[in-house]
Amino acid sequence: MIGELADIYRAYLDCLNRQAWDELGRFVDNDVQHNGRLLRLSGYREMLVKDFEEIPNLQFNIQLLVCEPPRLAARLSFDCTPRGEFLGLSVNGRRVSFSENVFYEFVGSKISSVWSVIDKLAIEAQLP
Amino acid sequence: MIGELADIYRAYLDCLNRQAWDELGRFVDNDVQHNGRLLRLSGYREMLVKDFEEIPNLQFNIQLLVCEPPRLAARLSFDCTPRGEFLGLSVNGRRVSFSENVFYEFVGSKISSVWSVIDKLAIEAQLP
Repeated sequence: MIGELADIYRAYLDCLNRQAWDELGRFVDNDVQHNGRLLRLSGYREMLVKDFEEIPNLQFNIQLLVCEPPRLAARLSFDCTPRGEFLGLSVNGRRVSFSENVFYEFVGSKISSVWSVIDKLAIEAQLP
Repeated sequence: MIGELADIYRAYLDCLNRQAWDELGRFVDNDVQHNGRLLRLSGYREMLVKDFEEIPNLQFNIQLLVCEPPRLAARLSFDCTPRGEFLGLSVNGRRVSFSENVFYEFVGSKISSVWSVIDKLAIEAQLP
């Protein structure tokens, strides 16, 4: 059961990395919430599409994975070049490395809630 | 085993909330690392003592707990009044609410590594 949810999660990240938005509904619930806001699948997809517009070379990599069904927590690592402003910082095409610590709650095989924190301090430390 | 580690973790947070620094070594390994830096128990204790100096009413509350031994992930919620500057922000005694998403790796019953991200964006949103 732990392995099953972890496998689903890895397939979800692969879907994001391929920007295979038509497959997103296989992994994300119609009524998904993100940091307490009801985004629904359509809003969640818009958020991700916007992320890739702002960061064309965005790729999700797992650094740590902790799974206790129906919840899963991941520390994701990013190494990318946001085009312009990112999290209110003028990154402007600089290469930055940072982490995101994120929790997911699943209903069945689909993500129903996400609680995410991105390490803004780490990015600030890489800017002049 | 999951319940055991979760119980140890709750006792660790209780130790922090009581500022019972003489008990910290029951929960934290001598060679503890924090966000990739080797702090050791003495440096980890100094970091926590400084946190409570800067935020006298600091209390650690569990919002989410995900446990897969030997790792545990927690979303902690804080509602407190940092005295002056906090994470580079001039909070100056204002009351702020924010989360920390944090991963722990245990060796036996002790924390050996910590990977923490604090939601700085949430705090910024609460300042004028």
